[in-house]
Amino acid sequence: MSLLAVGTVAFDTIETPFGRAERILGGSATYITLAARFLTEPVRLDAVVGRDFPDEHIALLRERGVDTRGLVRDPNGETFFWAGRYHYDLNQRDTLATHLNVLATFEPNLPADFRDSRVVCLGNLDPTVQARVLDQTEAPDLVVMDTMNYWIEQTPEALRDVLGRVDVLIINDAEARELAGQPNLVRAARAIRAMGPETLVIKKGEHGALLFTDDVVFSAPAYPLEDIHDPTGAGDTFLGGFAGHLARTGTYDGEAMKEAVVLGSALASFVVEAFGPERLLDLTPEALASRVAAFHRLSAMPAGLLA
Amino acid sequence: MSLLAVGTVAFDTIETPFGRAERILGGSATYITLAARFLTEPVRLDAVVGRDFPDEHIALLRERGVDTRGLVRDPNGETFFWAGRYHYDLNQRDTLATHLNVLATFEPNLPADFRDSRVVCLGNLDPTVQARVLDQTEAPDLVVMDTMNYWIEQTPEALRDVLGRVDVLIINDAEARELAGQPNLVRAARAIRAMGPETLVIKKGEHGALLFTDDVVFSAPAYPLEDIHDPTGAGDTFLGGFAGHLARTGTYDGEAMKEAVVLGSALASFVVEAFGPERLLDLTPEALASRVAAFHRLSAMPAGLLA
Repeated sequence: MSLLAVGTVAFDTIETPFGRAERILGGSATYITLAARFLTEPVRLDAVVGRDFPDEHIALLRERGVDTRGLVRDPNGETFFWAGRYHYDLNQRDTLATHLNVLATFEPNLPADFRDSRVVCLGNLDPTVQARVLDQTEAPDLVVMDTMNYWIEQTPEALRDVLGRVDVLIINDAEARELAGQPNLVRAARAIRAMGPETLVIKKGEHGALLFTDDVVFSAPAYPLEDIHDPTGAGDTFLGGFAGHLARTGTYDGEAMKEAVVLGSALASFVVEAFGPERLLDLTPEALASRVAAFHRLSAMPAGLLA
Repeated sequence: MSLLAVGTVAFDTIETPFGRAERILGGSATYITLAARFLTEPVRLDAVVGRDFPDEHIALLRERGVDTRGLVRDPNGETFFWAGRYHYDLNQRDTLATHLNVLATFEPNLPADFRDSRVVCLGNLDPTVQARVLDQTEAPDLVVMDTMNYWIEQTPEALRDVLGRVDVLIINDAEARELAGQPNLVRAARAIRAMGPETLVIKKGEHGALLFTDDVVFSAPAYPLEDIHDPTGAGDTFLGGFAGHLARTGTYDGEAMKEAVVLGSALASFVVEAFGPERLLDLTPEALASRVAAFHRLSAMPAGLLA
């Protein structure tokens, strides 16, 4: 089924203990679509870039099967830019620069034939913009949303409005605690689900993810990787894999949500192996299936205890 | 089969956001034995206390089936004392006081009929003391060891000597990174296993645990609890449950190690529900079996993806 991703398409400058990458392709919608296209089609991208954005990047997305007709070029400014530096163990990062540029005045205007998308992914953006995108869609089957601490702190009311309109919220553990005002994750999950999203996924980076639905609590591991080069985009890739799987199956029950968490985790485990979205570009379906099987082995509970 | 635990028996003063407990029963060997006795017998305790240690505490351990004949009372000093304060989210704590007292001059001297113990648990202690305990045992089937950052930093050579003599090391993720001098946990695990322990368990608190053996990498979740009152003793309880299960089964292959991780995690998930070891005192085998089943549900991978 059709999947629409709204979010940022950006230039990222990234420093990790393993190297530095300058002004490479980044942004939440980039990672979401590059992950989702492994699982479903069509995958539609709605975002804005500036006059400095190279056609080659757009061609690259298109070659990977992403429908870029919603990618608008604003000739009056530069592309959204983010720079960050990761710490020694890659679990923490400092933001060195955030230049909104054309994102500051982004007004989503969905192409007419994007409006019937069945699964809608709202990447991390101003919640007012996320709401406007929803206004332009025609009763999607499933809305999956991301947000971050900035919006939780700066635009709490707009955020609550969108939360009331989405089916799935995917955030990290620190954001969950902050949004709920509650350090305990089980209680935080209950509080957040009462705000609207029936399903909540709490991402915990190298510690995996927790899924909360009406009838399921599921703890998924992260894949223990020997070579992590750049965590940038892992969360967005997770979202793209998660939503892509659900768009593929068209089922949204607890079991499907668990499968979606595993697919999201598997795709995220690849993207961190190289800088930027590079690893998503040459990934094969066989490698993905093999990683999914590895996830199953990794967390296969010992059967003997229940005998 | 027989299990021996060497470690501390202590007074703990604990502050958490949920309350304060003053000079309650604590210590690594206390938690290890109170956990292990659910799973195997005999469970033997070797430790030292001071003149101030009440007989009631010893009686309490004995009533729970712990063989306390190795618990020596040193009339020349006070019992080991630890005080700590947990932060808002319970994931971090500050040590407010550590008074070694009689522990400073503790010389292990195993009772003659403790020396044939088949599974030996070396709780967190000076590695020279841990080594002396091993000297007094008769070729145990399995030696399980804990340590902490203090010994990694202050007595690295003595620590390396003991590591060469143990089968299983159980430490937390920060300790694993420090011991290996390596931020990546997969690489750290390989480096640590090359130091001696064929099996390594890396505890990650609320994020579960990772098991590394020759043929298994296993990620176990932590149980998402709504009421965590005091994390003190969770790691020692994990060790007691882990080793207790292996002593019960007498098998030490990868599958048995996975089962041991689940039992350790299940017991640890109880101990944090109340202050000190309280929750371990009234726990029923039925409640434990039910929590083990809950762990299986929590991390049951969706079968559909492998079809």
